[in-house]
Amino acid sequence: MLVSCVAYADGRKLADIKPDEISDYLSRPECFVWVGLKDPGPGELAAMQHEFDLHELAVEDARHGNQRPKVEEYGESLFAVLHMIETEGAELVVGELDIFAGRNYILSVRNRAKKGFVDVRARCEREPHLLENGSGFVLYALMDSVVDRYFPVLDMLETELEMLEGRMFAGGSARANTEAMYGLKQKLMVLKHAVGPLYEGVGKLYGGRVPKVCAGSQEYYRDVYDHLSRLNQSIDSLREMVTTALSVNLSLIALHENETTKRLAACAALVAVPTLIAGIYGMNFKHMPELDWQFGYPLAVLMMVAIDTYLFFRFRKSGWL
Amino acid sequence: MLVSCVAYADGRKLADIKPDEISDYLSRPECFVWVGLKDPGPGELAAMQHEFDLHELAVEDARHGNQRPKVEEYGESLFAVLHMIETEGAELVVGELDIFAGRNYILSVRNRAKKGFVDVRARCEREPHLLENGSGFVLYALMDSVVDRYFPVLDMLETELEMLEGRMFAGGSARANTEAMYGLKQKLMVLKHAVGPLYEGVGKLYGGRVPKVCAGSQEYYRDVYDHLSRLNQSIDSLREMVTTALSVNLSLIALHENETTKRLAACAALVAVPTLIAGIYGMNFKHMPELDWQFGYPLAVLMMVAIDTYLFFRFRKSGWL
Amino acid sequence: MLVSCVAYADGRKLADIKPDEISDYLSRPECFVWVGLKDPGPGELAAMQHEFDLHELAVEDARHGNQRPKVEEYGESLFAVLHMIETEGAELVVGELDIFAGRNYILSVRNRAKKGFVDVRARCEREPHLLENGSGFVLYALMDSVVDRYFPVLDMLETELEMLEGRMFAGGSARANTEAMYGLKQKLMVLKHAVGPLYEGVGKLYGGRVPKVCAGSQEYYRDVYDHLSRLNQSIDSLREMVTTALSVNLSLIALHENETTKRLAACAALVAVPTLIAGIYGMNFKHMPELDWQFGYPLAVLMMVAIDTYLFFRFRKSGWL
Amino acid sequence: MLVSCVAYADGRKLADIKPDEISDYLSRPECFVWVGLKDPGPGELAAMQHEFDLHELAVEDARHGNQRPKVEEYGESLFAVLHMIETEGAELVVGELDIFAGRNYILSVRNRAKKGFVDVRARCEREPHLLENGSGFVLYALMDSVVDRYFPVLDMLETELEMLEGRMFAGGSARANTEAMYGLKQKLMVLKHAVGPLYEGVGKLYGGRVPKVCAGSQEYYRDVYDHLSRLNQSIDSLREMVTTALSVNLSLIALHENETTKRLAACAALVAVPTLIAGIYGMNFKHMPELDWQFGYPLAVLMMVAIDTYLFFRFRKSGWL
Amino acid sequence: MLVSCVAYADGRKLADIKPDEISDYLSRPECFVWVGLKDPGPGELAAMQHEFDLHELAVEDARHGNQRPKVEEYGESLFAVLHMIETEGAELVVGELDIFAGRNYILSVRNRAKKGFVDVRARCEREPHLLENGSGFVLYALMDSVVDRYFPVLDMLETELEMLEGRMFAGGSARANTEAMYGLKQKLMVLKHAVGPLYEGVGKLYGGRVPKVCAGSQEYYRDVYDHLSRLNQSIDSLREMVTTALSVNLSLIALHENETTKRLAACAALVAVPTLIAGIYGMNFKHMPELDWQFGYPLAVLMMVAIDTYLFFRFRKSGWL
Repeated sequence: MLVSCVAYADGRKLADIKPDEISDYLSRPECFVWVGLKDPGPGELAAMQHEFDLHELAVEDARHGNQRPKVEEYGESLFAVLHMIETEGAELVVGELDIFAGRNYILSVRNRAKKGFVDVRARCEREPHLLENGSGFVLYALMDSVVDRYFPVLDMLETELEMLEGRMFAGGSARANTEAMYGLKQKLMVLKHAVGPLYEGVGKLYGGRVPKVCAGSQEYYRDVYDHLSRLNQSIDSLREMVTTALSVNLSLIALHENETTKRLAACAALVAVPTLIAGIYGMNFKHMPELDWQFGYPLAVLMMVAIDTYLFFRFRKSGWL
Repeated sequence: MLVSCVAYADGRKLADIKPDEISDYLSRPECFVWVGLKDPGPGELAAMQHEFDLHELAVEDARHGNQRPKVEEYGESLFAVLHMIETEGAELVVGELDIFAGRNYILSVRNRAKKGFVDVRARCEREPHLLENGSGFVLYALMDSVVDRYFPVLDMLETELEMLEGRMFAGGSARANTEAMYGLKQKLMVLKHAVGPLYEGVGKLYGGRVPKVCAGSQEYYRDVYDHLSRLNQSIDSLREMVTTALSVNLSLIALHENETTKRLAACAALVAVPTLIAGIYGMNFKHMPELDWQFGYPLAVLMMVAIDTYLFFRFRKSGWL
Repeated sequence: MLVSCVAYADGRKLADIKPDEISDYLSRPECFVWVGLKDPGPGELAAMQHEFDLHELAVEDARHGNQRPKVEEYGESLFAVLHMIETEGAELVVGELDIFAGRNYILSVRNRAKKGFVDVRARCEREPHLLENGSGFVLYALMDSVVDRYFPVLDMLETELEMLEGRMFAGGSARANTEAMYGLKQKLMVLKHAVGPLYEGVGKLYGGRVPKVCAGSQEYYRDVYDHLSRLNQSIDSLREMVTTALSVNLSLIALHENETTKRLAACAALVAVPTLIAGIYGMNFKHMPELDWQFGYPLAVLMMVAIDTYLFFRFRKSGWL
Repeated sequence: MLVSCVAYADGRKLADIKPDEISDYLSRPECFVWVGLKDPGPGELAAMQHEFDLHELAVEDARHGNQRPKVEEYGESLFAVLHMIETEGAELVVGELDIFAGRNYILSVRNRAKKGFVDVRARCEREPHLLENGSGFVLYALMDSVVDRYFPVLDMLETELEMLEGRMFAGGSARANTEAMYGLKQKLMVLKHAVGPLYEGVGKLYGGRVPKVCAGSQEYYRDVYDHLSRLNQSIDSLREMVTTALSVNLSLIALHENETTKRLAACAALVAVPTLIAGIYGMNFKHMPELDWQFGYPLAVLMMVAIDTYLFFRFRKSGWL
Repeated sequence: MLVSCVAYADGRKLADIKPDEISDYLSRPECFVWVGLKDPGPGELAAMQHEFDLHELAVEDARHGNQRPKVEEYGESLFAVLHMIETEGAELVVGELDIFAGRNYILSVRNRAKKGFVDVRARCEREPHLLENGSGFVLYALMDSVVDRYFPVLDMLETELEMLEGRMFAGGSARANTEAMYGLKQKLMVLKHAVGPLYEGVGKLYGGRVPKVCAGSQEYYRDVYDHLSRLNQSIDSLREMVTTALSVNLSLIALHENETTKRLAACAALVAVPTLIAGIYGMNFKHMPELDWQFGYPLAVLMMVAIDTYLFFRFRKSGWL
């Protein structure tokens, strides 16, 4: 689906144009065209491939989807794949943004993602002095936007870990906690898959030899790189903490087992000792003076109660009950 | 066994030729020969070594088999070893594809693998403009095909992990699960051994200094490299998740132990308390008024039942039963 | 909030100046200005950006805060972000110090940190021969001061680990210990986040190509680098020891469980054996000579006591009690 | 002990010579001398040092033994240390092979290893066209032989792991298994120590700048390197699998504990329930009609048996027995 | 404290000199001075700083102590920090050796270490042809000596691990073992801190660009580097084995728990079954023929004994007792 198709020159919007006008604008030297597609059919992609002369392998990647994030050069043009991560409740949904960037065009293809890039377009048009840098700046603005959307996802996962830690030490359901930790680890993996390879890819867009398209916006790409670096480090820390939490969880389960055993033992003792006393007075010896006492029976029961009371407080004191 | 032996020129098939015609075609400058062998005997390999002037060490590697995947240059020719991984039920079968590629020949030797490369040959012949690049493109097409066949294997292992996770949290047999996780780890190791070294090897076939044979197809080799990179990352993630799953599994076993202990203790209590009551009324005190009551016995039994009922619901409420 | 604003020349303080005099002093070639801000409002930052012609991206980073430590070049000026770690009881509070350093100015922006840099200013003014190196030396002095403040934090964490080790082997509360170890791991993560990225960043300020501002103070930056390297290694060691301690902790919990089980079993035996004896003499056989003995009953009780005494010492000897 | 001392020229053996003839042959330009020592005394080494003008540090290393594998250049000559790993039953015995290689000599010193290099000498003499490359080829042949002897050791360890896996899942003695896994890890460490450093060392003998001695045999050294790379990867995989096996082992032990607990509980129930029934009929109530029944006693016993039978099958069904 | 102060020329000792004669000897071109200090006061260090014109940062490091090992260049002079590790019983004591090396002087400052370097001085004076290389060779000799002293420490730790392994599998006190393993890990950390950074530092003293002072003794520095590499690898292996041992230890504890549980259960059964029998014959049924038998009582006791004997051997056979 075609979302938008706009021509720019000198940092300013010229006009919303129709797809078949693209080649007219591409031929003007000072002008560049920005096309946005959403979940396009094969025909739309093929048309764009023809219009912008895109490399077959890149288009095939965009058509297949499920690529890992990357930044590839095809001659003078760039092909970038980014994962768009959106949240649905506590679950993560992974979409994909494929960007083709050449000297005088930018084509963004969004797949399986709800939120678009209206805000990016607005930002670019608000800053004509930066948009003058052409497609390289638009590429930056799109990347920056996708990367900035990772932060709330990361925050959500950090909050989730904190909640799990709280529940773990507060003694919540160990089974649910264990399962949630495993799920958190899986989500971190998804985020890592989005951030890690992109981090490597963006590193090639500033400093040293840089693709021509990006040359004018190097400091901006370094900024994206820096954000990715921060994300990367935070994800790794979170993963390590989840691993630590899992092992702490095991210790706490073992501790709980220990406490359960002690508690059981205490309870067992509270039953076993009176049973022994009852057993003793159930013996059939002829000469057992207590049996003949008037208050033998209540005294025996009293003795049971007394011993149990003593044991109860002793167990309580030593933390077994 | 000779599978096929075809001469190509200008991206088009010339003819199916006989092995002894190879040298005629090799002498024509614009022409190259593509030979496919399957589980060849030593004689066949020796004949090909003579025909194409292959390096002794490379031929020895192909003869011995059980090589790790690699891409080696011998002068102007290349020798590549790839693992072919096929599935038999839930098991993995590792075959080997050895490719000798020179300026005007390509020799592929398939060992212990069922599925051949008819589709690759068909694809190459469908795209004469690419096949014009000569043996370098055929080498790419073979590699691409082998690598693409890793993806369904990876998918199978991912599905296996998901199933194991499901069974683990649903409380299936922990013993069978543990064993299956170990088996999954082993299979991931097999896949890793196929992908990891090849990933390194293919990295030398594009960018920077490139073997002459591959020079015209660099972007295609980068595509294979990118696929291998994706596989590599997915395998590593899977391995990490299996390790995590194993440790979660241990936690769940410990939790289950805990629950078992509690349940036992509850059952024991349901027996021990009535036993104590019976013991008390089994005491031989002379003066135990209850013993003389008309309904002493049923009352005692009733008391036992009442206490057990109370305990039963209390245990149920606190999750011990 | 403006903390200070001073002009220096030839390593000596010229005067405390007002913000609107800054541009006068900046125009003098031999002179540089050092401005210190604390939790500045957006207006203050914007004024400074205008005064010193700071790069927009750097100012934005300083405005947002929550950056990871880094050292970035913008043309001939440097932008550095450092984490300031202060302790509140056993908790760590992370502040941020942003430093903008140009040929003839240094602007330090301190956020969320109590302790200022009066001592750094005093040290610089005490050593005019070093301050002659200009803003590069001030940048060093600020970095050195922040890094030196990490050491007492590290010492605190080391002491905390030692205390936890002591408690662990002395058999203190395993639950509290486990929780404290987890907390220690979290604090080490905070410190690692402050040290790790800075370590990388400072590595670029000496040896090889060096930003012009730092050129005269290279050996001093190497000294900071060396301190960071020491911190980095100590943090990694501490983290490894905490991980080891967590696994040792699990072993000790399992051992304790074992001891508990043994102790319970011993206690159970002390009750069960007399219960058996009582049961035997509670049998209703007609011909049980002991039952008729004069001292049968005390003898039976004596036997119970004797057996329990024997068992008690045997259990004690084998360490079960 | 001098094992052999032979002079070669043009790839062919000239003669077995005496140690004091060495210098005569060394002076002939086209000729090289190959000396083999076994567990030499200090005198023998000193004589050779004098004969071949070996570097003091290298000779000292050879004298002391217990070096890590390495390949070092001393001027135009090479000094290589390799570990020879032989098996004695299930144990590994580590010997050492020190090789001094110069333009016109090769001196191999074998320590604490039973198997010699008769086969290497035979192979070299069988292939005069390769032996023409001189001492560099002999060095390769020795290294290749040592490295090839690692493979059966690796196979043995792989077989050992498979056996341990089998025993582990078949429920063999967990204690013996744990100990055997630890032993396997130790042996893998020994093999790793032999392979890892050598892998690094051999990597310097082909491609890029290469010691003059090895220049003519580069493709052969790459072959050794490739074997070492395969060994290295297999060892790392094995180590990872042993670690995984150890953690699986722990899970299985915990599972077994769980099963033991359940079984015990089931047995305890089979005793406790009849005990309760016996206790009930041991109560001394006056009015217990069952006590007066003709078949009260057998009925009570029957009830016990019936309940136990029911419990037995229920436990069996739920897998507790 | 000044330990020694000697002037050398042409590889031979000239004279023991007084500190205030140092400058006389430094002015002679062919001569160098070697000064040894032990736990010096600030005044002594300041005097030497003045005498040899040492860099302030280096002297400050030497004054503060507690540096990590390193090798730093200050202009044409070198500053090296090494940890000296001595054993006191089973504990490690960490001292520090700071070496300042210039063209014509060597100053060694030993802190908190008992053993001096008399042997190094003797060795140097025994080998005038090497001492001719000047301060660079003395620096090597000191480093070599410190590094060689790490080996017995490593041997001690290896022996300790072997002892712990033995005790672990022989079933010694698991608590003491666990604590000892943790202690061993800590000691390995101390040794690692001494070796690891030094390994990096010494790597810069041979091959490629080398500080002028060391230029003549490169092969000797490579030898030290090789020793450090061996130490480094052994320490890493030991650490890995300790980690493995800790996890094996946990398995053995779990196994022991399992055995304890089984043993207890067996003992409980030996008591519970006779208790049941006694309970049965304690029932008050009117018609229980056995109760009237002449030998009913002894038969009942015999039955108890018989069953227990049977159970005892059955438990023993299945390893529960």
